[in-house]
Amino acid sequence: MTAGPFATATEVESAGEHAYLGSIAPGWDIAGNANGGYLLAIGVRALVAATGRPDPVTATAHYLSPGRPGPVGITTAVVKEGRRFATASAVLESDGRPLLAVLGTFGDLTEDAAALLVDGSPPDLPPVEECVHLAPGGAWPPPFNARVDMRLHPDDASFARGEPNGIARVRGWFRLPDGEPVDTVGLQLALDAFPPTIFNSDLPVGWTPTVELTTHVRARPAPGWLRCRFTTRFVTGGFLEEDGEIWDAEDRLVAQSRQLALVPRG
Amino acid sequence: MTAGPFATATEVESAGEHAYLGSIAPGWDIAGNANGGYLLAIGVRALVAATGRPDPVTATAHYLSPGRPGPVGITTAVVKEGRRFATASAVLESDGRPLLAVLGTFGDLTEDAAALLVDGSPPDLPPVEECVHLAPGGAWPPPFNARVDMRLHPDDASFARGEPNGIARVRGWFRLPDGEPVDTVGLQLALDAFPPTIFNSDLPVGWTPTVELTTHVRARPAPGWLRCRFTTRFVTGGFLEEDGEIWDAEDRLVAQSRQLALVPRG
Repeated sequence: MTAGPFATATEVESAGEHAYLGSIAPGWDIAGNANGGYLLAIGVRALVAATGRPDPVTATAHYLSPGRPGPVGITTAVVKEGRRFATASAVLESDGRPLLAVLGTFGDLTEDAAALLVDGSPPDLPPVEECVHLAPGGAWPPPFNARVDMRLHPDDASFARGEPNGIARVRGWFRLPDGEPVDTVGLQLALDAFPPTIFNSDLPVGWTPTVELTTHVRARPAPGWLRCRFTTRFVTGGFLEEDGEIWDAEDRLVAQSRQLALVPRG
Repeated sequence: MTAGPFATATEVESAGEHAYLGSIAPGWDIAGNANGGYLLAIGVRALVAATGRPDPVTATAHYLSPGRPGPVGITTAVVKEGRRFATASAVLESDGRPLLAVLGTFGDLTEDAAALLVDGSPPDLPPVEECVHLAPGGAWPPPFNARVDMRLHPDDASFARGEPNGIARVRGWFRLPDGEPVDTVGLQLALDAFPPTIFNSDLPVGWTPTVELTTHVRARPAPGWLRCRFTTRFVTGGFLEEDGEIWDAEDRLVAQSRQLALVPRG
């Protein structure tokens, strides 16, 4: 089996004790800066290797500098190796500049415990073909949109016509192109792939750099399209949060996320 | 001004380059294990010292071993010092055993930007004197309940009588005893002080060890009682999340949290 484009673009190789080499591939950027979920996925691949555990149960990334195409050095440290989980940290650097600090706990999510409480449901989306495909074109939609296959709920895509609907929410379908499966590392990408929720608000905010992103993975996704929902409730103190949920084709919640982003002072 | 009991119990002192010494004080435990927010506060104090920035804008803790009273060594690493923020990590150890790994971004929240979107409100609580004070007594409520002053919404305290109301939610008032102000480090404690939401569910879960806790601080709290709300929507895959909000006496959202906890296999 040949590795898919996402797996290839997030590959890491060992480069000595606790050190890995990866690379930011071209085309994974938005306005020149590598997508945050993509960067996190590179760090998570290094930590999967460092811990020997296949699944990121929870990972937190702090974004330090924009990522540009080119080689990335990853230094890892395993803090604890337990029976069920291992906890480890990583710093990604490029040209001697820190890009990303990651702290995560890794395990094996093969076994899926029963759902005991589910107070929520997948987003109600029209069929894929009735949703909006923001295909890349010029500066916007960005080239990144060719690396993922996202289809937005029509109600949440009006911002792209300059007509935000006033609700800081984005819902849509997600998969990887070329039939590449989305594993638990791929979920890290999906959790930060959609346009910012704030684009659908009435606020004149064009750019919200992520300070911190935390992901929780509950289960390995079943094959097929994923349904995603991102919402923002509070834009205060110069920050906003964006909460994400991903549901798989079997109607299971497979991941949650929360990020803290800056609201640049106008 | 004399430091209050919380400030004293979370004090750290420099112990060489990047190293600090603190101590887990007695009485901050639940069934013998130090409260998770208290442990995080010790780590955050070390990182405030290491970064020279007064406020934890966001901090993530991974819980590795239970904390017992006694000395704690804290090793810190500053990953990036920027103009506005600094990002740093810490590992707390006791008897050569790692207790906690922390990654945080620190800054100065003196200036408070305008609230641009507030889709939510403080929990609607009866007056403090009509809420339920789970005063410590024997094994439960735990001795920890004397270190904080928490008053639960009567509807959310029925679990303490063995009559959970079936809603995985806990709302209540919070302050520190003896008039000690709650600063942004104190918020780390408040975000993990209340009884688990799951105690109010119908699920027979008695113990939910925290894997990971992430805090976001939006503003320094105004003096006075804080209003807190914790909710759990998904108990799946052997995990649950608990989302927290803290509102201050001026009706401002001052902090959010999300934690991932294990649901032990019955």
